[in-house]
Amino acid sequence: MAKILISLDSELAADVIMLLYPELRSKVVKYIPATEIVKFIENLPSDDAADLVSELEDEQIPEILEKLPQDYRAEIEELISHPEESAGAIMAHEVESLPGNYSVAQAIADLVRFGNDIEEIFQIFITDDDGKLLGAMPIQRLLVSSPASKLSDIADKVEVVVPIDSDREFVADLFRRKDLVSAPVVDKDNKLIGRITIDDVLDVVDEEASEDLYKIVGIVGEEEEDTSIHNIKRRIPWLLIAFVGELISGLVLKSFSNTLRRVILLTSFIPLIMALGGNVGTQSATVMIRRIALSRWGHYHHGKAILKEIVAGMLLGIFTGILLFSLGFVWGDIRVGLIAGIAIFAAMSVSSIVGSNVPVLLSKLGADPAFGAGPFITTFNDVIGLAIYLGIATVLLNWF
Amino acid sequence: MAKILISLDSELAADVIMLLYPELRSKVVKYIPATEIVKFIENLPSDDAADLVSELEDEQIPEILEKLPQDYRAEIEELISHPEESAGAIMAHEVESLPGNYSVAQAIADLVRFGNDIEEIFQIFITDDDGKLLGAMPIQRLLVSSPASKLSDIADKVEVVVPIDSDREFVADLFRRKDLVSAPVVDKDNKLIGRITIDDVLDVVDEEASEDLYKIVGIVGEEEEDTSIHNIKRRIPWLLIAFVGELISGLVLKSFSNTLRRVILLTSFIPLIMALGGNVGTQSATVMIRRIALSRWGHYHHGKAILKEIVAGMLLGIFTGILLFSLGFVWGDIRVGLIAGIAIFAAMSVSSIVGSNVPVLLSKLGADPAFGAGPFITTFNDVIGLAIYLGIATVLLNWF
Repeated sequence: MAKILISLDSELAADVIMLLYPELRSKVVKYIPATEIVKFIENLPSDDAADLVSELEDEQIPEILEKLPQDYRAEIEELISHPEESAGAIMAHEVESLPGNYSVAQAIADLVRFGNDIEEIFQIFITDDDGKLLGAMPIQRLLVSSPASKLSDIADKVEVVVPIDSDREFVADLFRRKDLVSAPVVDKDNKLIGRITIDDVLDVVDEEASEDLYKIVGIVGEEEEDTSIHNIKRRIPWLLIAFVGELISGLVLKSFSNTLRRVILLTSFIPLIMALGGNVGTQSATVMIRRIALSRWGHYHHGKAILKEIVAGMLLGIFTGILLFSLGFVWGDIRVGLIAGIAIFAAMSVSSIVGSNVPVLLSKLGADPAFGAGPFITTFNDVIGLAIYLGIATVLLNWF
Repeated sequence: MAKILISLDSELAADVIMLLYPELRSKVVKYIPATEIVKFIENLPSDDAADLVSELEDEQIPEILEKLPQDYRAEIEELISHPEESAGAIMAHEVESLPGNYSVAQAIADLVRFGNDIEEIFQIFITDDDGKLLGAMPIQRLLVSSPASKLSDIADKVEVVVPIDSDREFVADLFRRKDLVSAPVVDKDNKLIGRITIDDVLDVVDEEASEDLYKIVGIVGEEEEDTSIHNIKRRIPWLLIAFVGELISGLVLKSFSNTLRRVILLTSFIPLIMALGGNVGTQSATVMIRRIALSRWGHYHHGKAILKEIVAGMLLGIFTGILLFSLGFVWGDIRVGLIAGIAIFAAMSVSSIVGSNVPVLLSKLGADPAFGAGPFITTFNDVIGLAIYLGIATVLLNWF
């Protein structure tokens, strides 16, 4: 693979290398000499180049950067310096900007000079003498305007600008809501620094969706790495949390061992209580997490959505409670039926209250709501479910 | 809200209505008279208009369609006739196409005639006399080419065309892999019918991610609906599957009740075995589902990725087994420690084998891999985990 790439024309090779998925890419570049990598980088737009550089081994990076032309090197150093989750890290420096005092004719002459080198221009940004953003326009406006018009007169006001230090999830949300295709990135003085295009946003959306999913099943951290050790490290935190949580479930069972010893049949309902009770809460949490992630709701919707989840949890609890009551009655007697039926209703209700509120609470506290359906809720619901079940059992068995 | 919309200029109102999220939109349009809705629809691009029409009440649709101009009505009827998950349903009919025998000067004259009405042109498609797709080019090429050139001579070959009946997930994958911004949609005779743009793909990606997530936690069906009844209906299938599955878990416990009666301490480990054993399998399944969804791996990777998940599951099993052995030893005696330790190792290994293979198997059979981490695997793992645990317990307790 590495040999094939080196033998290719460097512009083509650069394109090919960016089509590889990141895991394979970082393996392949290890076998390519630095002088060749430099050629690839020179042929890439700055955002892709920065991605490639940041995937190199740490000791390779200075060697590669040294070989790059001074200007381009500074640009890439600046790009890789932005925090991974910020707008700066997904933007490109290449941006089609023209001075506001140019005429349409001058602008076209400028574009002709660059010829076919300019690909994928979505809009042209117009700046003042200090590089501050004045406006933007679709490129076809140059075709339909009179050659003498001043660019600043025919440009539109830019409605959406992205501050360079915005979170990339905020950027994705902006593109979603406003149906944007590209947006200018500015620094704190409103100077135009680069642009973000929607294809970069698509990558962000994919990554964030994976992250949320992984967090919900208890996998911590970034995209999957190559080694088994790394793979395991990402799951051990969940295991430890669950271990401690389920240990408490075990202690609950242990402390009720007299009740269990008296009616051993009660153990048969433990799997049902744990699985059905807990999962309704996870479902509520997942619905809320996804709603928050897609920002499809305003502030005023919180209460209503939570209420809907709780009502659903309670109705499902009644439905399952009746099923479980009948089952307990058939297997054992009316006491066992009552215990199991009431317990599953209570467990599902509590679980949907906890599950729907925690993600919203976490998001209000500025934490990641996706942890809300993860290890914490799952084990918490198991403990609560068992305690409710065995508590009700002890009380009812003493009554009858 | 409805009143405000009616009082607005219809072009602006049409824009506003498309910015609302679908749930709110379908509520608002109920209060708007048909004649007003027709005005909105006339001001929308055909893909948005078709979305809006398909969100109307079934009895409203014929009334609205009747009021539309004949041509536009036929277009929209055709758009809403495509299956919801197909390329046809997310494409727009508006497409900037020019005949291949036009010169650059003619093309510019054509564009000037349309004036500022043309927004968001990503590329111009070139067709022959029968409307078949010949090529495409970025709009700025008109600026940089000599006015006399024939369009068919300066156009690029179109590398990616989307057949109108392709699945929308396939389309999303195409945009992802090829970093596309727009793609032409053609019928079976290669006639140009419309185009899909990346902002429509972003919606697809969001929806598919939600769907996968919901399936994994056991919520069946499309985007959340408004009513609680609907909400509950989507979860009852999971509940019933889990109910039957966990019932079998209960039967397993019941059939081992002699073992449990002898050593009641064994019940204390049931939550740990169920939660830790099952979740490793869900994690493996989720990693595989996400990999399949993002299509980041070729056919040859299946075996390797599955093997990695199984190795991780077994290593985590050893780690947890040692923890559980120590705990059993401290709480009870060496027998309880051995039973719990061996059982969790065996449960985690089996669970990761099942979890990593089932999604791949489902996807090879043409089914949705996301069901692989859902109710089936979860309850299956619970049953297997408990059977392993109590089986080992019975055997070991008879030995010692």
